[in-house]
Amino acid sequence: MARLFFYYASMNAGKSTHLLQADFNYRERGMATMLWTAALDARRFAGVAQGEGPAVVSRIGLFAPARAFGEDTDIFAAFAETHAARPLACVLVDEAQFLSSAQVRQLARIVDDADVPVLCYGLRTDFRGALFAGSAELLALADELVELKAVCHCGRKATMNLRLGEGGAAVHEGAQTEIGGNERYLALCRRHFAAALAREATG
Amino acid sequence: MARLFFYYASMNAGKSTHLLQADFNYRERGMATMLWTAALDARRFAGVAQGEGPAVVSRIGLFAPARAFGEDTDIFAAFAETHAARPLACVLVDEAQFLSSAQVRQLARIVDDADVPVLCYGLRTDFRGALFAGSAELLALADELVELKAVCHCGRKATMNLRLGEGGAAVHEGAQTEIGGNERYLALCRRHFAAALAREATG
Amino acid sequence: MARLFFYYASMNAGKSTHLLQADFNYRERGMATMLWTAALDARRFAGVAQGEGPAVVSRIGLFAPARAFGEDTDIFAAFAETHAARPLACVLVDEAQFLSSAQVRQLARIVDDADVPVLCYGLRTDFRGALFAGSAELLALADELVELKAVCHCGRKATMNLRLGEGGAAVHEGAQTEIGGNERYLALCRRHFAAALAREATG
Amino acid sequence: MARLFFYYASMNAGKSTHLLQADFNYRERGMATMLWTAALDARRFAGVAQGEGPAVVSRIGLFAPARAFGEDTDIFAAFAETHAARPLACVLVDEAQFLSSAQVRQLARIVDDADVPVLCYGLRTDFRGALFAGSAELLALADELVELKAVCHCGRKATMNLRLGEGGAAVHEGAQTEIGGNERYLALCRRHFAAALAREATG
Repeated sequence: MARLFFYYASMNAGKSTHLLQADFNYRERGMATMLWTAALDARRFAGVAQGEGPAVVSRIGLFAPARAFGEDTDIFAAFAETHAARPLACVLVDEAQFLSSAQVRQLARIVDDADVPVLCYGLRTDFRGALFAGSAELLALADELVELKAVCHCGRKATMNLRLGEGGAAVHEGAQTEIGGNERYLALCRRHFAAALAREATG
Repeated sequence: MARLFFYYASMNAGKSTHLLQADFNYRERGMATMLWTAALDARRFAGVAQGEGPAVVSRIGLFAPARAFGEDTDIFAAFAETHAARPLACVLVDEAQFLSSAQVRQLARIVDDADVPVLCYGLRTDFRGALFAGSAELLALADELVELKAVCHCGRKATMNLRLGEGGAAVHEGAQTEIGGNERYLALCRRHFAAALAREATG
Repeated sequence: MARLFFYYASMNAGKSTHLLQADFNYRERGMATMLWTAALDARRFAGVAQGEGPAVVSRIGLFAPARAFGEDTDIFAAFAETHAARPLACVLVDEAQFLSSAQVRQLARIVDDADVPVLCYGLRTDFRGALFAGSAELLALADELVELKAVCHCGRKATMNLRLGEGGAAVHEGAQTEIGGNERYLALCRRHFAAALAREATG
Repeated sequence: MARLFFYYASMNAGKSTHLLQADFNYRERGMATMLWTAALDARRFAGVAQGEGPAVVSRIGLFAPARAFGEDTDIFAAFAETHAARPLACVLVDEAQFLSSAQVRQLARIVDDADVPVLCYGLRTDFRGALFAGSAELLALADELVELKAVCHCGRKATMNLRLGEGGAAVHEGAQTEIGGNERYLALCRRHFAAALAREATG
C-alpha cells in the first residue's frame, strides 16, 4: 500500500535536494512523477530558475520544473486529471508547510484512493517555534515522519528557525510568511534558539 | 546531550507498556526516574490501580505509581525540587496529549537546561483526526518522533482513533476529551477511519 | 505488502516485552499469531514459565507460550501448515539472533509469498561485538531495522553486551552462546564496552 | 555526544547526493569536513571527476574531492593529523561497504575518542544478497542505522542489487567486487530479486 511521507526539517537541511533525488530515482526507472512547490516560493525563486516558471530549487545547484500550488489549488483534481492520462508513480511536494489542511487531506486521498505514494518536504515550525498549518496537518496524518538534519553552529542538530531583522537581531513578531531570502533565517538547535530569543527580550 | 522524545500512536498500541519498560530499564540500573500521567486519566484508572493514587497502567497488566499533572501543574518546578534532592536519570510522561503547550516547553527545559532525557507517550490525534494541544507542541519541539504501532482490523497500521457512540456508530462531534473507557474508541488505519466517517455522514 | 522487521537491541532493552505487546495487539483484535523462541533459550527459561513448555518471557513479568526453533526447524513449513488451517495475521520471533541464515530466508518467504508480516526480536552482537548469524542475515534482508534502547550505567544508550566471568571481570573469549543467566552479561555503551575490554587486556 | 551513522541502501538510492548535501550543510556554516571514498571506486569515476583525483560523485551531477581509502589506509591516523591542524566537524565516507572491519573500528574511535560525528554511506548487500565486510561491521557497531530508499520497477522499495551478465541475465556467482559500471546492476525489491535468481536457475 502506498504511504504519505512527511520529510520535515529546519531551513537549509537539504529538503529540496532530497526531493529532487527521489524524483530522479523514479524517472530514471521510466516512471512518471508530479512535482509541486508553493506559488509563494515559486515567485521567490523565479529568477534562479531562469524565468522558466515555477521550479523546485536546491541551494546545492539542482532544480526541476514543478507546478505551483496557491491557496485555492485543488491538488487532487490536478493529480487525477494527469494520472488518468499517464499513470503517476509518485507525487512530490516541496515547501509543504504552506499547504492548507484541505490540501493535505487531498494528498492523503491520492495515497488512500489511488494508491500512489506522496512525499512532502517542508519546515516543521516558523520563526516563533509554532507549527505551520501544512506541517500541523501532515504531522497529524502522515504515515511516516522522517527528519532531515541541518546543523547548528555548535555542531548539534538544528531544529528551529530564527528570523533575523535589520542588523541581525532575532525577531519575535511578524507575519508567519514573509517574502524574503533564506539569509533572513538561521537554523539553530533548540538551546541556541531559546538563548537568542531570551537575549533579544532582555537586551 | 539529552533529548526530548515523543512516542506517538493511536489507542491500544502499547504506549504505557513501552513507558513502563523504559522506566524498568533505568531503575534496574539503580537510576531514579519520575513518572507522570494526566490527572484526568489518573481518575479514570483509579480503580484499576487499587485506589493507591495515580498510576501508569497498561492493558497488558503492568502498572507503576506516577504523579498526576493537571492543567496548572508546573512540571519543571516539581522536577527541579526532586532532582535537587536526588538526581533523576529520566522523566517519563504518559497521556502526553493532555499536556498544555507551556508544560511541553517545561519538559524541553528539563532536557536543555538540566540535560535529563524526557520520554513522552501520547495520542497523535483525536476522534476527528485533529491534533491534541500537547501532541501539537510535542510534534513541533521534540528531538525525536517515534511511532508505536497499533493494528487495524485489516492488518494495516492503525493511526486514527474512531469514537463510537451509542450502538457503536462513529461520532463526528463532541468534546475532545471525554471521561470514558477505551471501549469507546477504535484504532483504525486512515482508509477505514475515513470510510467509517463517510458511512456515518451518508447513513 | 507485508514486511520483515528486525527489532534489535542489546541485553535488557525490553525486546520480549515489546514482542508480547505486539502479539497482544493482534490477538485483542481477534487475529491469530504464531510465536517462536529459541530452543536453547526455551530450556533456560523453562522454570520461569512454570514447566509448561517453551515461552517468551520478559523480565518485567509477562510471558506467553511459544514454539521453540532448533537448528533444523523448518519455520516456513510449520507456518504453512498452521496458516492453511487458520490464517495467521503475524509471526513473532524472540531470540532471533539464534536463527540460522536459512531460517531467516524462510521468514522472508512468509513475508514475500504469504504476505504475512514477521517481527523478529534479537541481539545485534555477541560479547565480542561480533554479529550473531541470525542477526547478520536479518540485518542483510529485513525491510525495517528498528532499535530498541537499553541504558548504560552512564545514561547513554547501551548497544554492546559485555560478558562477565568469575569475579565480574570482562571476558574476551569463549563460545558465542553459553547456557547461563542474564546476570553474566552487562549492557554498555560502546565507550564503556571498549574501556572494559581494554582494562581487562592490560589489567 | 557524537554518533556513528550508517546510511545504507541498494544501488541508485542517492547515497552520494545525500553525503554531498550533508557535507554542504557543514561547510556552509564554516565548519571543516573530511571526505573519503574507496580507492577502487575512485578509479572507476576518475574520468567523471575530470581527472582531478578521487571524488565523491553522484549520478544527479554533484561531486566533491575526497581522499581515497585502500585496504591498508589508517583512517584514524589520517583524521588525527588533520584534526590537530584544524578541528574537523564531521567525517563522511562514501562506498563504505568496502571498508575493512578494522577501518570501521577506526571510525568508531573518531566518534568515541574525538567526539566527531562520522557519516558512512554504503550498500548493504552484494549481488548474492550477502553483506559486504564493511557493511557487516557498520551494522554491528553504528549508533544509527538509516535507510535511503531506491525504487524497484514495481514501485516498491528496492533493497537488493541484482548483477547482470552478458545479455542482461542475472548472475549468481563471481567476485563480490567487480570493476564495472552501475549499468551492470539493477536495484530490485526482495520479491523481484528472488524471482530473477529463480528464473535464472531454472531457465
